[in-house]
Amino acid sequence: MLKDLILKNRSYRRFDQSVPFPTALLQAMVEAARLSASARNAQPLRYMLFNDPDACARIFPTLAWAGYLKEWPGPEKGERPTAYIIQLADLELTDDWWCDDGIAAQSMLLTAVEQGFGGCIIGSVQREKLRALLSIPERYKIIQVLALGKPAEKVVIESMKEGDIKYWRDPEGVHHVPKRGVDELIVNFG
Amino acid sequence: MLKDLILKNRSYRRFDQSVPFPTALLQAMVEAARLSASARNAQPLRYMLFNDPDACARIFPTLAWAGYLKEWPGPEKGERPTAYIIQLADLELTDDWWCDDGIAAQSMLLTAVEQGFGGCIIGSVQREKLRALLSIPERYKIIQVLALGKPAEKVVIESMKEGDIKYWRDPEGVHHVPKRGVDELIVNFG
Repeated sequence: MLKDLILKNRSYRRFDQSVPFPTALLQAMVEAARLSASARNAQPLRYMLFNDPDACARIFPTLAWAGYLKEWPGPEKGERPTAYIIQLADLELTDDWWCDDGIAAQSMLLTAVEQGFGGCIIGSVQREKLRALLSIPERYKIIQVLALGKPAEKVVIESMKEGDIKYWRDPEGVHHVPKRGVDELIVNFG
Repeated sequence: MLKDLILKNRSYRRFDQSVPFPTALLQAMVEAARLSASARNAQPLRYMLFNDPDACARIFPTLAWAGYLKEWPGPEKGERPTAYIIQLADLELTDDWWCDDGIAAQSMLLTAVEQGFGGCIIGSVQREKLRALLSIPERYKIIQVLALGKPAEKVVIESMKEGDIKYWRDPEGVHHVPKRGVDELIVNFG
């Protein structure tokens, strides 16, 4: 059932760093993105794949983690991502990729989750630092980074109270994500 | 397997209009969107659901179909969508929803496909006409429209030739969509 996959596909930020991320899975994720819809069929998105420890260690400091957890600087050694996918847009093809980035990200993450892995879409990226590090030409805009690995944290969804969108972590380390109810999402102005 | 769902999730533009689109499925689609990731957990997206024939008939003329099929004005009577989901952003919450729109659209369409339905994300919308028709307050930006129904066309993926992104329809009515190869999507500048 797809719903089970969607439920399992939480934004994971701590991983079991002893478990390598399979190269074949990274490729399967790009294949899932490739087979997904693209506005005007332009297909302007590109992907850089990384799963070797050295590259991951270099990419890690360019990312910011969990904006609402002010006391938490991000995953410690041993629980850091074991792979990254950097999503780029080829600006020579188009500078408007509509929602291709989200479509592709969702296809990729669901593909990872189906195989027992998972990750987090990170938009808070030191883009110029990352660009220099990986020699990414100006032709490509850095959209976002998927941080990936074998999840090593529990993430639970709960009902949002009084519009407070901030996720939080309890003393046992469980990550709580408040979600709006479906009644709030469905609107009608008739 | 998720990959089968992703493969079946083509952009369908012709439907069997004799098959009603279940209300419960529209709601399950919003539930799938609700359970998907949202940037900064802001959850600013909202959904209007329509599956009654009168409403569908009024919404239909506000949408443009298949830009590359210049000879085709869109689905005829009998093959038009039997449901729509209008995706809105609540601008009082944020004016930047990152790629939430694509994430949610993909979760919703995969949910429909799993139940034997399908659809097309339409970005070419006469937004002011649609806003007036449905009394959508200015507070909400109309992002895009999902046109939905029981697919009644065959859509095939093929390898892209010489960078030609235009989909096309053959004399038998089969819709052909050229896709870039995975080797073109994976880049490396090392």
